Amino acid sequence: MMHAVPLKWAGCGSKIAKMEIVGKSHRRYDALYKARGKAVYVDDLYFPHMLYAGVKRSPHPHARIKKIDPGGLKGKKDVFFVSYEDIPGANKLPIIFDDWPVLAPGVARFAGEAVALVAAPKKELIPELLDEIEVEYEPLEAVFDPELSMKSKVRLFGDNNVFASYYYDTGDIEKGFQDADVIVEDTYRTPYQEHAYIETQGMVAVPTPDGGMEIYGSMQCPFYVQKAVAGVLGIGMNKVRVVQMETGGAFGGKEDMPSQVASQAALLAYVSGHPVKLIYSREEDILSMSKRHPGIIKSRVGAKKDGTLVAVDTTYILDSGAYATLSPAVLWRGTVHACGPYRVPNVRVRSYAVATNKVPCGAFRGFGAPQVIFAMESQMDRIAEELGMDPAELREKNLVREGDTMPYGHKLAGSVGTLETLKKAVEKSGWKEKRKTYGKEEGFKKRGIGLATIFYGVGLGAAGKQLDRSGAYIQITEDGKVAFAVGTTEMGQGMKTALAQIVAEELGFRYEDVAILPTDTSRVPDSGPTVASRATVMSGNALRNAAKPLRETLIKIASELLSVPPEKIELKLGDVYVDGSPKLSLDELIKEAYRRREHMASQGYYVAPHTSWENKEGGEAYMVYAWATKIAEVEVDLLTGEVKVLRITSAHDVGKAVNPTLVEGQIEGGAIQGMGYALMEDILTEGGEIINNNFSTYIIPTIVDAPEIIPIIVEREFDKGPYGAKGFAEQPLMGIAPAITNAIYHATGVRIKELPATPERVFEKLLKAGKVELWKEK
Amino acid sequence: MMHAVPLKWAGCGSKIAKMEIVGKSHRRYDALYKARGKAVYVDDLYFPHMLYAGVKRSPHPHARIKKIDPGGLKGKKDVFFVSYEDIPGANKLPIIFDDWPVLAPGVARFAGEAVALVAAPKKELIPELLDEIEVEYEPLEAVFDPELSMKSKVRLFGDNNVFASYYYDTGDIEKGFQDADVIVEDTYRTPYQEHAYIETQGMVAVPTPDGGMEIYGSMQCPFYVQKAVAGVLGIGMNKVRVVQMETGGAFGGKEDMPSQVASQAALLAYVSGHPVKLIYSREEDILSMSKRHPGIIKSRVGAKKDGTLVAVDTTYILDSGAYATLSPAVLWRGTVHACGPYRVPNVRVRSYAVATNKVPCGAFRGFGAPQVIFAMESQMDRIAEELGMDPAELREKNLVREGDTMPYGHKLAGSVGTLETLKKAVEKSGWKEKRKTYGKEEGFKKRGIGLATIFYGVGLGAAGKQLDRSGAYIQITEDGKVAFAVGTTEMGQGMKTALAQIVAEELGFRYEDVAILPTDTSRVPDSGPTVASRATVMSGNALRNAAKPLRETLIKIASELLSVPPEKIELKLGDVYVDGSPKLSLDELIKEAYRRREHMASQGYYVAPHTSWENKEGGEAYMVYAWATKIAEVEVDLLTGEVKVLRITSAHDVGKAVNPTLVEGQIEGGAIQGMGYALMEDILTEGGEIINNNFSTYIIPTIVDAPEIIPIIVEREFDKGPYGAKGFAEQPLMGIAPAITNAIYHATGVRIKELPATPERVFEKLLKAGKVELWKEK
Repeated sequence: MMHAVPLKWAGCGSKIAKMEIVGKSHRRYDALYKARGKAVYVDDLYFPHMLYAGVKRSPHPHARIKKIDPGGLKGKKDVFFVSYEDIPGANKLPIIFDDWPVLAPGVARFAGEAVALVAAPKKELIPELLDEIEVEYEPLEAVFDPELSMKSKVRLFGDNNVFASYYYDTGDIEKGFQDADVIVEDTYRTPYQEHAYIETQGMVAVPTPDGGMEIYGSMQCPFYVQKAVAGVLGIGMNKVRVVQMETGGAFGGKEDMPSQVASQAALLAYVSGHPVKLIYSREEDILSMSKRHPGIIKSRVGAKKDGTLVAVDTTYILDSGAYATLSPAVLWRGTVHACGPYRVPNVRVRSYAVATNKVPCGAFRGFGAPQVIFAMESQMDRIAEELGMDPAELREKNLVREGDTMPYGHKLAGSVGTLETLKKAVEKSGWKEKRKTYGKEEGFKKRGIGLATIFYGVGLGAAGKQLDRSGAYIQITEDGKVAFAVGTTEMGQGMKTALAQIVAEELGFRYEDVAILPTDTSRVPDSGPTVASRATVMSGNALRNAAKPLRETLIKIASELLSVPPEKIELKLGDVYVDGSPKLSLDELIKEAYRRREHMASQGYYVAPHTSWENKEGGEAYMVYAWATKIAEVEVDLLTGEVKVLRITSAHDVGKAVNPTLVEGQIEGGAIQGMGYALMEDILTEGGEIINNNFSTYIIPTIVDAPEIIPIIVEREFDKGPYGAKGFAEQPLMGIAPAITNAIYHATGVRIKELPATPERVFEKLLKAGKVELWKEK
Repeated sequence: MMHAVPLKWAGCGSKIAKMEIVGKSHRRYDALYKARGKAVYVDDLYFPHMLYAGVKRSPHPHARIKKIDPGGLKGKKDVFFVSYEDIPGANKLPIIFDDWPVLAPGVARFAGEAVALVAAPKKELIPELLDEIEVEYEPLEAVFDPELSMKSKVRLFGDNNVFASYYYDTGDIEKGFQDADVIVEDTYRTPYQEHAYIETQGMVAVPTPDGGMEIYGSMQCPFYVQKAVAGVLGIGMNKVRVVQMETGGAFGGKEDMPSQVASQAALLAYVSGHPVKLIYSREEDILSMSKRHPGIIKSRVGAKKDGTLVAVDTTYILDSGAYATLSPAVLWRGTVHACGPYRVPNVRVRSYAVATNKVPCGAFRGFGAPQVIFAMESQMDRIAEELGMDPAELREKNLVREGDTMPYGHKLAGSVGTLETLKKAVEKSGWKEKRKTYGKEEGFKKRGIGLATIFYGVGLGAAGKQLDRSGAYIQITEDGKVAFAVGTTEMGQGMKTALAQIVAEELGFRYEDVAILPTDTSRVPDSGPTVASRATVMSGNALRNAAKPLRETLIKIASELLSVPPEKIELKLGDVYVDGSPKLSLDELIKEAYRRREHMASQGYYVAPHTSWENKEGGEAYMVYAWATKIAEVEVDLLTGEVKVLRITSAHDVGKAVNPTLVEGQIEGGAIQGMGYALMEDILTEGGEIINNNFSTYIIPTIVDAPEIIPIIVEREFDKGPYGAKGFAEQPLMGIAPAITNAIYHATGVRIKELPATPERVFEKLLKAGKVELWKEK
């Protein structure tokens, strides 16, 4: 349990200093202007001669398009129409297989798929203009269930509709189960989850004089959008400039999807020569944009009498929907995370992403992991019960430590805070006492406490490693201030603030002297997507690399001006320090650098550390892992099946909390989103079509539902992270669901194997198990 | 006359290759979209909730402002008013002395000076809103003549109203004149010149959510604007982002002036919280924006019988107007250029920039040199006449060669094409024959041919060296294309095209695969102003520095892929060549670089070579010089005094013509602008106020006036310039005026010592000299 000592970046031989900015809870860079309503979102944009766009969508889950007739649109002044036949470039979005078309090319494969586009000068006209487009369909047989799809004669992909499949084997799975004293086996099901970002998808495309296109919009991954739009228009990526606007939530739903929206707007802008704004309504956003994949997890877990895990066999099936999009990557992450953060000597994991005639699923906070975590953490509790062990003790026994090897062959070098998160959460939550007392309440409301221990591979990992690099730009202005740009995006997670703190720390500025430039594909090299909790590590390190030569120049000049050796110079909080005393203001130092015509701007670049993966053997899947323990306390109403979450204790090893308040905010937000996943959120389909496509029927938690949340920060520094930080922002959601269902079990003795644990579902279980107090009381 | 061999940038040991792109006349990057009307100028911009602005100006040349009463504006909805009392930061524009206020602070010092600002939602309302502002003035005594100003009791600056003064002495001026066989002495006067850019000054200021300001506008020097706006608003420069829009002409008039316009727009945006657009009308633009300084040049020149110059004594007085702005720099350049491109052993130069109560003068193509060139080249012809020498022979005898020392002590190392321009222009124009035959025509139209030899220091030189550095950014996209950004601006001169050619050449792209990003202060470090013919050299070299690591990476990978040593790899025209044959496409090479996660973006920086200056001794004033010879042929109508320019032969040593057609275009445009300066352009004032403030009264040449122009390109490579190029784009205007007045003299025997040589002025001279044929014929 060596605790790595954090080293402040030591560039140019300067003293290793105490951190002045990193680790402090500075006010969010965007707090004030968001609170004041001054943030500029894509729908706030207007360009002269701008048109408004709409999308005609297929009402059928699977149909041949026999004819698209723009009908009455023809000859209408300033009205523009685009079908797949008008696309100048490729009608495919570059994601993994490049299979999702911008406009259905003759066949529509899900209800809600885009079929044609229209643009006109007034937004109000769009619905009636869309009605004027006549599309003649020939409905085709459709398949909606992934397990049936693998055997169906409906052909959506390859021979068996399986978009992707991964596997690995460790040890001898048969022998493992033979050695087990106890084996639990079950099938778990998880639902769709809608991202429910406050701001729906939206883009404005503006043709540029030189034949290019500027894209402004709400997004996570501007470089994806750049590539998509260039491909669809058939123009160079060097002529497509993508600028991220303030983004009102994303959660993975703005990873690949904005490429679709931007390409649609860009096509209309290209055809019309006008700027075009396309903002999705909530209904079409829910109908047509990606979701968390529904999962089916078949799990068999074996353990020795003392709790030692000996075998885990998991089959993981994802319902991908009509196009592959990110499914292979989501599936791969789920595959890697299938056995939890445990030492397991014998493992067999098989996974499948399967096509169906439903909305394509994609990225969502956790990215394929929450599904398998729900299964594995439910199974862990079942093992504990079978053995009569405390679930926390069972975890403690099995959790990986530094030096251990993950079931897929990754030997952990450092930054493994598993046990510390468990111990702190158990202690802080009063676990031991509550395990004894909860569930013994008088009356029809029963309390329970449950836990889950989880891990999360930070960054894109081996499956996405070619994209796992980032650029940054820093510019020091003559007046002693600094601005920077990165290629990753702020979507509410607090990236700007964390990175501003890192820049201030690196170069000795005060936090308030740092300004942030827009994220724009043309400012820094392709920095990959802003996903996988990678922005702090990747952009943070790129910024540190950018800061290095600037710092060296400043220290060199300071050393000359003050006649002290460079190693005695310290830049901090707007001053130049020697032996702990300020000797010169940073302003003056920078003015001198300007007088000397020094290069006061710099580009940094960072490439993620080595990762590897091979099916069968696995590999060093991720550069580092974040670890967490979730403890949920619930009260179950035996009369209604309603579950009220009382308290969530959520302990996270984040490497280093660059801004502790932001880390706590993430923990809180994720806990509530995880609670929605556990208890209420579900997409319902009828004949493949989503029927609850707004927030009056798709229910998410509100502030009224929010439990007390106790965030715990554990800092086991990641030696390659900026100031020891590692990404973690997806984790807060993860593991909340099994902690809650384990707590429900503790309260009532009924086990929820299919999410969400709605009152109806819980009540039905209670009823079957004879637990409904109402009946007794009668 | 050694001719330097151009070396192609040899980065990473690659073969020195023939240039493929540089030196060829590729189509202007902006040709098509400008011709199609798709270029986006500042007045094409619109932002939601944008206000329109207007400026209340002083009608008095000098007056105390007793009261500014917004009167009826108060309480008007969405109408905003700003006077100097509302300025949150400094009411001074940072130029050289930082003396020009944004709004007159209690005293107005010229007629047209800005006194108050107003903004409102409708542009049409602005004139009447301005009328509602009541300003009470107490007129003060004013001074309009610079020579009187030096002795006036009206105090505008210091003790004697002299903003700046320079001098240098070489040899022994008294002895020089004693040794002279012939001495000519005279006073020459040059007029104001209005820039007459097609697009008037204009800016849009947009408040940013984080308390900063974005500025979009027509300008030459975005970094000046950034500093000005930050200072006026009292905010960090890191929060002021300045984006240059398409700029419809500038000619120096958009060097410092846009800081004024942007600050006015920014103040209203700051006060109102709205975007604000401020576009000057032609009238207020002419009234209030800088002009070429009127000059008074007292010149005494002595030569030996054989034509050898022995002494030059020049006193140079500039009428600066009410504020210093760029006058010291303009004066310094004129001081350096006072004796022409000649070997002169004994020199005395004294110069003064003097304040008057008129519009401040500033930068204009040539920047203080055209005035002294007019005097010196007139004097040279007078010497030739006195000695009975051919004016071309007199020049040839005295022109500096490589290894010679300029009169201010700069020993010329190389790239001295003086003689070559003279010889080629003389030959191509048929000079010798025409000197004999012209002027002997029958009737009242007399022809003449005249010349001028000139030089121009490229770049900011010693007086502005702290600003003489530039940054650049290059980004190679995954699809095998490239985009770049620089900090200098395109204002019609062709910079974008020249730089795109340099980038393509450096990295082996086809010209059409290069895209250019907007010039934006936040993309590259402060790159100085786009003035002094410096953009090709400074941004070109910064781009080459940026290209270097990219080129090295690409060559390294190509070397590995093709298994040949790096020095055999050549990147050109979109392919990778080995031994003269294409082996691999650049596209494929770049894709491989992306697969390897190489850093495919780069920042470059370039600092201008050494320059120096001390009063008295002079110094190495500029990094390099451009040289030219101008020959004008005219026909003078003895009945009207009208001068028709028949032909201009203009030979320029440009180092290397990156794009010969663009060089020729510059030569043509400059010739016509120089012809306007020589013959028709003049600003008239009454009581200090400009009375000809539009193009019906301020007359500039049109296509009807354009003579035949014969451009000659001489290439004496500058070893520190990109591919040997040195800046030259100001030169085409310079020397046209004395070539024309010398031709008038050749035709008629009357010498014009005051520009412009309007028909009235020429006719009066002809009349006095008894040359008016009309009288004879009677």
